[in-house]
Amino acid sequence: MAEDSNVYYTEGLPVPETPAPGDKPAFWKQTDVVGKRIPRVDAYERVSGTAVYPSDIKLPNMVYGAILRCPHPHAKVKKVDASRAKTMPGVRAVITGVSPKVKGLNWKYRNYTGPLFDSHCRFEGEVVAAVAADTRYQAWDAAHAIEVAYEVLPYVADYKEALSESAPKVHDGGNLAGMDEYERGDISRGFAEADAVLEETYETPCQIHTPMELHGCVANWDGDRLTIWESSQGVYAVQSNVAEVLGIPLSKVRVIGHYMGGGFGSKLKPGKYTVLASLLAKQAARPVKMILTREETYLCVGNRPANTMRLKAGVKSDGTLTAFEFECIGPSGAYPGGGTALVDWLVRDLYKCDNVRCRSKDVYINAGTARPFRAPGHPQGSWALEQMMDALAEKIGMNPVKLRLKNIPAISQGRSEPYTTTGLKACIERGAQQFGWKNALKRAKEQNQSASHIKRGVGMGACVWYVGGGGPPSTVIIKLFRDGSVNLNMGASDIGTGTKTVMALVTAEELGVKPEVIQIEHADTGTTQYATPSGGSKTVPTESPTVRNAAIDVKRQILEMAAEDLDVRTAELDYEGTEIVWRKDKSKRIRVTDVGRLKKRGVVVGVGYRGPNPRTKTVNPFGAQFCEVEVNTKTGEMRVLRFLGAHDSGRVLDRLTYDNQVFGGIVMGIGFGMTEFRQLDGKQTGKLCNRNWHDYKLPTALDVPVDMESLPIEIDDPEANNTGTKGLGEPVTIPTASAIANALYMATGIRFTNAPVSPMGMCRRLAARKEG
Amino acid sequence: MAEDSNVYYTEGLPVPETPAPGDKPAFWKQTDVVGKRIPRVDAYERVSGTAVYPSDIKLPNMVYGAILRCPHPHAKVKKVDASRAKTMPGVRAVITGVSPKVKGLNWKYRNYTGPLFDSHCRFEGEVVAAVAADTRYQAWDAAHAIEVAYEVLPYVADYKEALSESAPKVHDGGNLAGMDEYERGDISRGFAEADAVLEETYETPCQIHTPMELHGCVANWDGDRLTIWESSQGVYAVQSNVAEVLGIPLSKVRVIGHYMGGGFGSKLKPGKYTVLASLLAKQAARPVKMILTREETYLCVGNRPANTMRLKAGVKSDGTLTAFEFECIGPSGAYPGGGTALVDWLVRDLYKCDNVRCRSKDVYINAGTARPFRAPGHPQGSWALEQMMDALAEKIGMNPVKLRLKNIPAISQGRSEPYTTTGLKACIERGAQQFGWKNALKRAKEQNQSASHIKRGVGMGACVWYVGGGGPPSTVIIKLFRDGSVNLNMGASDIGTGTKTVMALVTAEELGVKPEVIQIEHADTGTTQYATPSGGSKTVPTESPTVRNAAIDVKRQILEMAAEDLDVRTAELDYEGTEIVWRKDKSKRIRVTDVGRLKKRGVVVGVGYRGPNPRTKTVNPFGAQFCEVEVNTKTGEMRVLRFLGAHDSGRVLDRLTYDNQVFGGIVMGIGFGMTEFRQLDGKQTGKLCNRNWHDYKLPTALDVPVDMESLPIEIDDPEANNTGTKGLGEPVTIPTASAIANALYMATGIRFTNAPVSPMGMCRRLAARKEG
Repeated sequence: MAEDSNVYYTEGLPVPETPAPGDKPAFWKQTDVVGKRIPRVDAYERVSGTAVYPSDIKLPNMVYGAILRCPHPHAKVKKVDASRAKTMPGVRAVITGVSPKVKGLNWKYRNYTGPLFDSHCRFEGEVVAAVAADTRYQAWDAAHAIEVAYEVLPYVADYKEALSESAPKVHDGGNLAGMDEYERGDISRGFAEADAVLEETYETPCQIHTPMELHGCVANWDGDRLTIWESSQGVYAVQSNVAEVLGIPLSKVRVIGHYMGGGFGSKLKPGKYTVLASLLAKQAARPVKMILTREETYLCVGNRPANTMRLKAGVKSDGTLTAFEFECIGPSGAYPGGGTALVDWLVRDLYKCDNVRCRSKDVYINAGTARPFRAPGHPQGSWALEQMMDALAEKIGMNPVKLRLKNIPAISQGRSEPYTTTGLKACIERGAQQFGWKNALKRAKEQNQSASHIKRGVGMGACVWYVGGGGPPSTVIIKLFRDGSVNLNMGASDIGTGTKTVMALVTAEELGVKPEVIQIEHADTGTTQYATPSGGSKTVPTESPTVRNAAIDVKRQILEMAAEDLDVRTAELDYEGTEIVWRKDKSKRIRVTDVGRLKKRGVVVGVGYRGPNPRTKTVNPFGAQFCEVEVNTKTGEMRVLRFLGAHDSGRVLDRLTYDNQVFGGIVMGIGFGMTEFRQLDGKQTGKLCNRNWHDYKLPTALDVPVDMESLPIEIDDPEANNTGTKGLGEPVTIPTASAIANALYMATGIRFTNAPVSPMGMCRRLAARKEG
Repeated sequence: MAEDSNVYYTEGLPVPETPAPGDKPAFWKQTDVVGKRIPRVDAYERVSGTAVYPSDIKLPNMVYGAILRCPHPHAKVKKVDASRAKTMPGVRAVITGVSPKVKGLNWKYRNYTGPLFDSHCRFEGEVVAAVAADTRYQAWDAAHAIEVAYEVLPYVADYKEALSESAPKVHDGGNLAGMDEYERGDISRGFAEADAVLEETYETPCQIHTPMELHGCVANWDGDRLTIWESSQGVYAVQSNVAEVLGIPLSKVRVIGHYMGGGFGSKLKPGKYTVLASLLAKQAARPVKMILTREETYLCVGNRPANTMRLKAGVKSDGTLTAFEFECIGPSGAYPGGGTALVDWLVRDLYKCDNVRCRSKDVYINAGTARPFRAPGHPQGSWALEQMMDALAEKIGMNPVKLRLKNIPAISQGRSEPYTTTGLKACIERGAQQFGWKNALKRAKEQNQSASHIKRGVGMGACVWYVGGGGPPSTVIIKLFRDGSVNLNMGASDIGTGTKTVMALVTAEELGVKPEVIQIEHADTGTTQYATPSGGSKTVPTESPTVRNAAIDVKRQILEMAAEDLDVRTAELDYEGTEIVWRKDKSKRIRVTDVGRLKKRGVVVGVGYRGPNPRTKTVNPFGAQFCEVEVNTKTGEMRVLRFLGAHDSGRVLDRLTYDNQVFGGIVMGIGFGMTEFRQLDGKQTGKLCNRNWHDYKLPTALDVPVDMESLPIEIDDPEANNTGTKGLGEPVTIPTASAIANALYMATGIRFTNAPVSPMGMCRRLAARKEG
């Protein structure tokens, strides 16, 4: 099935905003490249090292920036003396909060605006001063030679304590950053109707984005124009933020972000470092390269907030869910960042339940501010909901797969409107089948009844992703040269997900050309078209219809031109591959590259815009993941043996990049469930304890299964958009950790409500059980 | 008048291809910036040195290229031995005609195709081998360490001898490169009707383009994609040529040409050096910078061919021209290059004459190939025609200004179709008036009747330029950001003429924004839109209507969006500056930057295409120049005291850049008439004698008058295009030299039929007259 994806879509697809030429159906029926396994178009550049990432940029006369950051979780800057730093070797520029042209500049965190240099430092890592010097080391040394007098203040590091009377206040208004309430139906009645009611408290850790490429940029002024090479998910967002902070026209800020080494949400916008680099470059009158240290990225460029969730659920003995009551608290960090954002969405939307109440409290603590992180809130909510579903299934003696299938909702309950399509049922059903759920279950039971200290379990989790349908605005331009080769111009960043590759495939498919003759220009506010940041799993469903519309616009013009050559009416012409044929007599035809006006003009320029989204329906991707684990009950060691991700993200454009996304999401989910957590020293200093790749454990190749499988569930989605695509990047990481937790429960009989589950944690629980 | 140019155009102007929004007239009635004296938008970059020209490009690991050229005007390469060169320090790549992947590559000169490395070297400077090495000097040394065995052949250097039986043959087919004949009416009858008939032979020198920035490029491969930074007049032309020679898709050749230091026609296309740099870069696997030496640019990147012209003219005593017979010969050089191209155009088209016959012979010689050079053929033809007009006026005792005014044609005789507009009469009439022709004439006569050895003369010449109306194709994209700032994307090169500035003014005028908020991206085949090369004085009339259409497309969209905000119909809305107002109640209005959908989308993208040219009319610019000279009859020294250029090039967009063009054209014309000539050693070696700025004399600041005046003749040209512009760059250099020759005649009574007129030449003629 999966390999046949190129013939999956047949009819009923929507007319794109830009009408298709001729009488052709508006959608690809049979594809040449779309849906195949095509290597990345930039594979050579990436593996050969010729791909230039922002951290590779080197400009003539470039100097290096370094930032002095507050070492305390909570302090007031009383005095800054940079006089010694300014005299140090190689120093070109020094800025502090009182520097001319700096004082008065502000920085925004969502709805909160404060000074760029805030003398009230609310987290370890707040900027205090910045330096540019001829070398990185000179800059670092000079920054740390700046003398700062701090008034150290009491801090709050534990978000569960943040609302207590005695907790130090992060902001004058108190530590409550926000609240959210949601209710439908009547949970009292729901619980009354239930045959079984369970209640549990779950905790998830604070996870750090920590992408491969460090955060940073190179900033260069040319007169009144600022050019920034930034490791970014969205160049227009960087442009917009920087222009606003500096108070200069948008057109005077050019942001380039061709290659970038991962962001996961932490590079959706620029950082203060971007503005500091720009200010230093102005003062130094030289380009400034400002790449953060790994330690800095742990401190202050975002995180997935920790959450504590209480979930109470009612179920009838036939599996009907009667009520969910969900309470959640989470830390936004020092500024508004969404401490509990979307944590409750799965409870609201994933399974059919008439009576639901959710309450969230978002609190300030003295630590780095939270930021969107791959499926914000969802892996946390999944950790609670999917473990609860397993527990309910056990309670009423039902197969957990069956319980989920019993509760597939007909519409989006969270939005009270239909989905364009939902593949939830298919993901669970066909995923379980492909995974071999029954056999695996049997195998695990047999193993666990044996005398072996190696225990085994299978587990699953399902998901919906809050958005993922993309939408306007987006503009793309395609230039078709007279030799049939193509230049594609789009503003979107390729954040490592293969955006360039899939857009090349869409172009190739529509224009009938080989992907090799397509050259892509992207992610440059100066020279490429408008795009919103690559995030929210919306890049493919936003940009691919836009690209297709641009290609269709090229074809429209070619048909008009060919009509002159063939001396027939444009409406009577069809595209066949790279030829234009007359419908009335197919022997009358012309190759695109022979079209007279194209040869004369040299190039045709097609413009595509993203059409509107459906007005009364929601476009969401779905998924279900299945895993099998082994636990060594003597050592506490756990092995994830295999994983299967069955995902409905609409049409598959490139099967290779699709599978990569699924595997990458699972790997990150393993990190979330088993290895990663931010450790603040809440007792003594309030400072971050694990601030590097040694102390903060990312899963490595040894922690993830060799046996990972991706099963695309492609469902004809005529209403989503004209490529039938939905987002994939985020759903693939949502149910991973909860599937593992469920499998671990089956292997050990222990419910791990607190993530991550480390071997040491496993040992403690196994020991406790023995003792108990 | 000139300063009022911004209120000059009022009505009758054409509807642009993209309709103007609302009920507004299609043309600017009153302007805010167009027609004013506005400094260059890139003035800061240019004067501060931050502007990066191709010769400034420096890439990591870049190496340098050098070319070994044939030292003989005619020879055959019998053997090339690069073995020693390959072992020399720093050498990274060596290519010769037998290198793999080089053999079989071809190079095109117009309709002639030969090998890239042609073992038959037909001119001094033909490429024989090329080297890339770590430094320029290593490359140069290694190139000259390549041992070449030549069979030296007899050469022809004198084009007037090229067709003789005994002349060595440049090509097997003989030395006749081409012929052209033109005839209208009956010249025999014409001469019979004449009251006076004059005949004269005129000669003009071979002039070298020798722009400030040397020819060259930087070439870099990234996988299968080639990026070239080239000092070029047209990046798409470079892309096209290089892709064709190398046999790779157009999309895989990206050519960038942001700044460039002059071309004058010699950079309309790439040189062999561009391809050699690309081949060396491939072999070296490093970027290669290949900048020619000044000497090389004298040898082999083009020239304005020398011409010998015989002109016979008949005139009635009332000033009616009855016949022109024109014969011309000129050297194409070693390959087809247009040795006599357009030399006869002024005779055909400028003055009314019913009987005209022109014959041209274009011949091969063993020297560098001719190329278009600022108004190809025209200054040569003007040198003959305008001196003849003066002589005819003298013969029939008529004021030379009056004789010209007597013969203003009603239509283009060369094309047999009307001009959209002709300002020829106004240029002559109002130019003479502004110049003070009568007083100057009187002053000169008085001076010349005095005993002083300083003699004085005034002279004039008029012109039409063969093309200058521009035309499709061209595409431009304008992005309007939500803060009202603007990004303009066009493919055209700014060859130093201020293209970026005038396009910014057109955008500013149409959108009602300040030029300072406009940022321009241009001249990049990868990221900017399609444009033909900047040449033929067509950049402004081609690109400015396209830019205007793009701005109009932006406004169209903004009106649609504003209609939503104001809740009225789009058709009832008008643009007023940067506000949208409801025509029915002007208090209902909204600022562009407040338009809701713009704020949400962040940007609006407008696309403009160049509309078609008039089908049955020709668009040509006209001009007349007037000068006053002094001759020291003791020393032969000449001083050009003042110049006035009255030019009809349609609407003035920026008065500063307009005047600069006029002055620059006059300066170049002074060089053509008084200082510049290529000297081949025809007797002994056939080699070029003057190959640097010392031996080849360009006019300097001391050779040009301080008193130069520009008088724009702006005539409402509703049919030309929607900005009413015509070309200026070339007409301004056409009549300069002939005006000087006419003034010198008045001062000395000597007719200088051979250009240039040097002080030494003047001395000889004065001496000869005394002796005679």
